[in-house]
Amino acid sequence: MAEKLAVSPLAPDHFPSLDKVEGVELFTAPIGAGYHGRHNLLLARMIEGTSVAGVLTNSKCPSAPIDWCRNNLPIGVARGLVVNAGNANAFVGRVGADTVLATAEATAKLLGGVPSEIFISSTGVIGEPLDPQPLVAALEQALKHSVDFEAAANAIRTTDTFAKGAGASFDIDGVDVTISGIAKGSGMIAPNMATMLSYIFTDVPVSAVVLRSILLEGNAKSFNAITVDNDTSTSDTCLVFATGAAKARGLVPITDLDDPRCAEFAQALHAVLKDLALQIIRDGEGATKLMVVNVSGAVSNQSADIIARSIANSPLVKTALAGEDANWGRVVAAVGKAGEPADRDKLQIRFGDLVVAKQGYRSADYSEEDASQYMKNQQIEIGVDLGLGVGEATVYGCDLTHGYVTINGDYRS
Amino acid sequence: MAEKLAVSPLAPDHFPSLDKVEGVELFTAPIGAGYHGRHNLLLARMIEGTSVAGVLTNSKCPSAPIDWCRNNLPIGVARGLVVNAGNANAFVGRVGADTVLATAEATAKLLGGVPSEIFISSTGVIGEPLDPQPLVAALEQALKHSVDFEAAANAIRTTDTFAKGAGASFDIDGVDVTISGIAKGSGMIAPNMATMLSYIFTDVPVSAVVLRSILLEGNAKSFNAITVDNDTSTSDTCLVFATGAAKARGLVPITDLDDPRCAEFAQALHAVLKDLALQIIRDGEGATKLMVVNVSGAVSNQSADIIARSIANSPLVKTALAGEDANWGRVVAAVGKAGEPADRDKLQIRFGDLVVAKQGYRSADYSEEDASQYMKNQQIEIGVDLGLGVGEATVYGCDLTHGYVTINGDYRS
Repeated sequence: MAEKLAVSPLAPDHFPSLDKVEGVELFTAPIGAGYHGRHNLLLARMIEGTSVAGVLTNSKCPSAPIDWCRNNLPIGVARGLVVNAGNANAFVGRVGADTVLATAEATAKLLGGVPSEIFISSTGVIGEPLDPQPLVAALEQALKHSVDFEAAANAIRTTDTFAKGAGASFDIDGVDVTISGIAKGSGMIAPNMATMLSYIFTDVPVSAVVLRSILLEGNAKSFNAITVDNDTSTSDTCLVFATGAAKARGLVPITDLDDPRCAEFAQALHAVLKDLALQIIRDGEGATKLMVVNVSGAVSNQSADIIARSIANSPLVKTALAGEDANWGRVVAAVGKAGEPADRDKLQIRFGDLVVAKQGYRSADYSEEDASQYMKNQQIEIGVDLGLGVGEATVYGCDLTHGYVTINGDYRS
Repeated sequence: MAEKLAVSPLAPDHFPSLDKVEGVELFTAPIGAGYHGRHNLLLARMIEGTSVAGVLTNSKCPSAPIDWCRNNLPIGVARGLVVNAGNANAFVGRVGADTVLATAEATAKLLGGVPSEIFISSTGVIGEPLDPQPLVAALEQALKHSVDFEAAANAIRTTDTFAKGAGASFDIDGVDVTISGIAKGSGMIAPNMATMLSYIFTDVPVSAVVLRSILLEGNAKSFNAITVDNDTSTSDTCLVFATGAAKARGLVPITDLDDPRCAEFAQALHAVLKDLALQIIRDGEGATKLMVVNVSGAVSNQSADIIARSIANSPLVKTALAGEDANWGRVVAAVGKAGEPADRDKLQIRFGDLVVAKQGYRSADYSEEDASQYMKNQQIEIGVDLGLGVGEATVYGCDLTHGYVTINGDYRS
């Protein structure tokens, strides 16, 4: 079934070469017989003093691991990460929290530290209890199997058609530092499993409070700016771990948002977040085209964001992309239905650099031929200028194809 | 292309038998060569003293005819209705308003009354200027071709796979009265044309103010409670015309909302509106199943409505229906993403009468076999009880199939 899917046509050529992050060890193992015969447990061990920041799903019906992470993130200290693929431990009543607690306790015993320093994610089927026993057994087995980031990215896949990673190596104050991250996700809740998960590791010494602020800013323009089908998972999670190991190499810790080095670190982290987020879109279920929606001239950034999402989520815009149809009427409709301030007669719409409509009318230079040619590209940029203010936003999406319906419309069994 | 679509599997057996409405004459004609060789102009002539009420699209980028109707509805007086299919007269700049004015003036000259008493709708391609000359010529031609409601319903079709009508004949104070209505619509903005239009006619003497109030109430539970793809057209229109002809047969006009006869009339009108709205869903592009989402136990009716729409519009729920998959995990996810108050551990989810999950857990009586059997039905009822309050709402939708992608993803040309 899902595992048999062909690799997305939008996939990168290969998994990137990611540097090890000092202070982090990665391990994998199969839980029981594994998941489609594969290692489906990821364990990460971090050195003492590791800070953590995270963003979690806004779903009002979150999984048990989300509740756990939300409770422990404010402390900002991490020693371990456990991720299992195949069972989301979601919507299973109180037993879900019991499983999380048992996993955290067993992991803390193995790695040191206390259970609240163990972060946990689960992705997969909703509504099936997750038995902690084989999971705990797999943890012990995993410690004998150290892996690299690519293997770690593979362990957390469900319906993903390729493993996702991104990283950066640079220096701060002349000290070499590294950021390496992995992610999974295709549709938001693929055939009964799947979700968006991302884990980023760095040896930069940065306090949890600063890390959180930088993550939130970057998340808004990366994971929160992508939409495959506007369906939010019960388990969406992004965690950033900063081991601080570069401190031993002379890097003074970053503990203040006014520290000018924040900008350097933030720039690198944000680029990694965006790279990972776009890889998720590139693995959107059935996707054959990447859609970039740039909205400008709105009354506010928030208004621009709502309009951009209305376009990126419109089934009619998405199917037009799939059909390589420069159907700007559907873009007008999507702007109109967003409910945000818009003036039909000030609207400008572009496909790439081609102005197709302006001032409420088809552009005089509009060429159906040029537009049709443009729509054959793998990446389609839709530009909308509302002509009302200075609000702007960019949202990333993909097309809606027969592949999406096939993947999500097939029987589970 | 669109005209060649097979009739929806959810279509009624035949167009209903609709009674004539005293005070209304219907006419059709082709505009120029017509539309796919068909009569595509509908003209309705109403007697003097006809009141009108309407609801129009909320789109911030409405068509020129929407602007016209919005300006004239507050007067509440109608003499004529003109509808053309094939060109939406939308997003064509100032020339759109010129065409509407020319049409209204010509129609008023033909039928009597003033231009503001002529109501106009256009449906079809966006962004192409609509030439008023052949339209006006067709008006004169139409007056020689009186038709019934079925022919009128056919004239306003675009991508509809069947003509839509509904009506009621009953008595008020012992006087026989009639309501007959027609509608069009399938996807909200089908392949570059289509929209939701509905026109209802009655001989009941009822003031425009009362009519408006009754229409708004009924619209909320009919046209506003359906969703095919959550895409709002630039041209959505529902107009109700009350000729008052039954006054001559002794029926005292209804001019006050406290008049006890309002309830009788409202009940009949609301049934007609709901019948027409469900026919639109039954013609949802590619639809093979009708989805009824009943949400109860929400903190308010508005909250219930938002949650019900989140479910009915979720691509993952819609594709699960297409696949006849009782995938309640996707319903949980759709509840969670709605952003409204919900408590995972109080949630109950039903497919038809089958309780699949309660108190945040799969129901002990849950039978995958029974659920799979239920999903084979043509009408699927999804029930969600939030267990928080007394808010409730019902929203109607349909499944998302390969047919939808084919219809909307094909090249325009």
